[in-house]
Amino acid sequence: MQRRSFLAKTAVGAAGAAGATLAAPAMAQSLPTIRWRLASSFPKSLDTIYGGGEVLSKAVSAMTGGKFQISVHAGGEIVPGLQVLDAVQANTVECGHTALYYFFGKDPTWALASAVPFGLNTRQHNAWWYQGGGAALFNEFSQKNGVHSLMLGNTTGQMGGWFRKEIKSLEDLKGLKFRIAGLGGQVFAKLGVVTQQIAGGDLYPALEKGTIDAAEWVGPYDDEKLGLQKVAKFYYYPGFFEGCTAAHLIVNNKAYEALPAEYKAVLSAASAEATLDMIAKYDARNAVAIKRLVSTGTQLRVFPRPVLEAAYREMQGIYAQLNAGNADFKKMYDSYFGSQADQIAWGRANEGTFDNFMSAQMQAANKPAGK
Amino acid sequence: MQRRSFLAKTAVGAAGAAGATLAAPAMAQSLPTIRWRLASSFPKSLDTIYGGGEVLSKAVSAMTGGKFQISVHAGGEIVPGLQVLDAVQANTVECGHTALYYFFGKDPTWALASAVPFGLNTRQHNAWWYQGGGAALFNEFSQKNGVHSLMLGNTTGQMGGWFRKEIKSLEDLKGLKFRIAGLGGQVFAKLGVVTQQIAGGDLYPALEKGTIDAAEWVGPYDDEKLGLQKVAKFYYYPGFFEGCTAAHLIVNNKAYEALPAEYKAVLSAASAEATLDMIAKYDARNAVAIKRLVSTGTQLRVFPRPVLEAAYREMQGIYAQLNAGNADFKKMYDSYFGSQADQIAWGRANEGTFDNFMSAQMQAANKPAGK
Repeated sequence: MQRRSFLAKTAVGAAGAAGATLAAPAMAQSLPTIRWRLASSFPKSLDTIYGGGEVLSKAVSAMTGGKFQISVHAGGEIVPGLQVLDAVQANTVECGHTALYYFFGKDPTWALASAVPFGLNTRQHNAWWYQGGGAALFNEFSQKNGVHSLMLGNTTGQMGGWFRKEIKSLEDLKGLKFRIAGLGGQVFAKLGVVTQQIAGGDLYPALEKGTIDAAEWVGPYDDEKLGLQKVAKFYYYPGFFEGCTAAHLIVNNKAYEALPAEYKAVLSAASAEATLDMIAKYDARNAVAIKRLVSTGTQLRVFPRPVLEAAYREMQGIYAQLNAGNADFKKMYDSYFGSQADQIAWGRANEGTFDNFMSAQMQAANKPAGK
Repeated sequence: MQRRSFLAKTAVGAAGAAGATLAAPAMAQSLPTIRWRLASSFPKSLDTIYGGGEVLSKAVSAMTGGKFQISVHAGGEIVPGLQVLDAVQANTVECGHTALYYFFGKDPTWALASAVPFGLNTRQHNAWWYQGGGAALFNEFSQKNGVHSLMLGNTTGQMGGWFRKEIKSLEDLKGLKFRIAGLGGQVFAKLGVVTQQIAGGDLYPALEKGTIDAAEWVGPYDDEKLGLQKVAKFYYYPGFFEGCTAAHLIVNNKAYEALPAEYKAVLSAASAEATLDMIAKYDARNAVAIKRLVSTGTQLRVFPRPVLEAAYREMQGIYAQLNAGNADFKKMYDSYFGSQADQIAWGRANEGTFDNFMSAQMQAANKPAGK
């Protein structure tokens, strides 16, 4: 949670009784009418992640009786999706909803709030952000760069991508044209992959024509809508470069500081409500979409162990370089990865064993009679 | 999310501009001052789960400028922890914070909102509650019984309990005196265990004197505070009878309906914020506590596979009986378990593979040099 919201002293001293006999104090308590514009980095077609902005907006309006209104604008409507950070920094819009790793090129530190290869999974990321000092530390960096940051949703663990041919060894990656950006792209480049950056809407024709051999997008529910299953047969996992991908609400520092304490608390709680909602939506929708994809011919494949291990080794080298060259990154990296080993050990022991056992029961139950 | 909160029409039509020129409308918009008492089922010593009530209370107060205040009372302060449902139904207190499986004896349907053996894990439970129709369906039952229910935290997956002797086979369970209640107790009874109900504060002396052979409580962080590691050496997992344990805010129907739409939305968002916060706290704290326990002599053990499998089989029989005898239970059971197989399959494939790979890397990194 954003501790500052919980601890913020409210502007109102003695809350007093509301009623006709106390007209003057009641007036003094009136909260301002505020209209904000939220620039989303996401298209409306990605209804789950884009919808996080709408869930936030509705909750904020409902809690304030319509006094605090946030209008949500899809990527491209006010500014292109990848210019949302600039627009919020410049106060062109008061706030934005984005995946902060889009701004890795400005400073790799942004990516640590969102997703980095071989990083934290969804639960681990939340534990770090809300209870491991992540939110406070990241906001030092974020506010220095003009924006206040609150988590606003998570896509959960993403898939590894769609491949036209099977990947059976490290050799099969050499020269492969793979649409993948950011740090994930950097690590695949070390393995000999020719990485490409192509917008989501162009992935289908590029795969169909063979301009690219493979593409990663999000996960089953979102990928299915692009129709990628029709032009690439093999769907690889795990998406080790995005063990989870957190999205954020970024608010211009001055706009944020001008809010009454009540509205800051409302933004914090609404962001949390939208985050829980988005994780639940992705889990519910992906589970059904993957089943549908597999039943209509998609071949699920696990990346070969040597590929995962080589990527892991190469990534450690990339992290070493980033840590050596950027003090902000190193500070955040140490915090982000500081609890990883303990979190993984605990998660795998108790809940991992439970999940494995339950998985075995479900598989047994789905076998035909006389198994 | 509680859809009704998002969709609720606010009492205020045109929000209007707040300001000195519009005194009358501003007065009409004033929200009432409300003071509620929350009876918690939990002692203050269980600071993570008890703290969920305090996180809620602080968020509600901060969002409303102190107009909506909820005072939090530990178990026993107003009513004993196990009488919280009765107290809220009777409007002795407006609301309570409890684990609804405590009321399994009144009607087993209550348990499905909280925890049942071989049920959903934390993410799956949230997906069902917020996006699988769980919240709406459960509230039909809950409101018929006098209370509105919102999720308010989750302990995450609990451990299987502390045992004085190792359990190597089903035979070792016969005649074992195990402190475990509810449906978990019923399934262990089928395996020949003599189940006991003992209050948390009495577990240490009961284990020390050998009055009982084993006891389950919550997980590493909470169990450590009771000192159970000093009187039982073997700590078993997985806690298959509580794959996760959701807690809830229950609100007297009339008190809830009397709230302005704004305050209903505030309760919904504050509950979500407290839920995310509690899951993050348990994850962060348990990961450190389990490490500390193991480093000071606790022996971690997995329940033998035949024990898990026998318990799973026996549980199906118990569920069949419950479904045959209780229409409310069956309706909720079908909803709760309806998505389990799909959720497990998806979770185990992508994220499970990622988690397993990361676990292997952490184990390799922790081996001494020259491994």
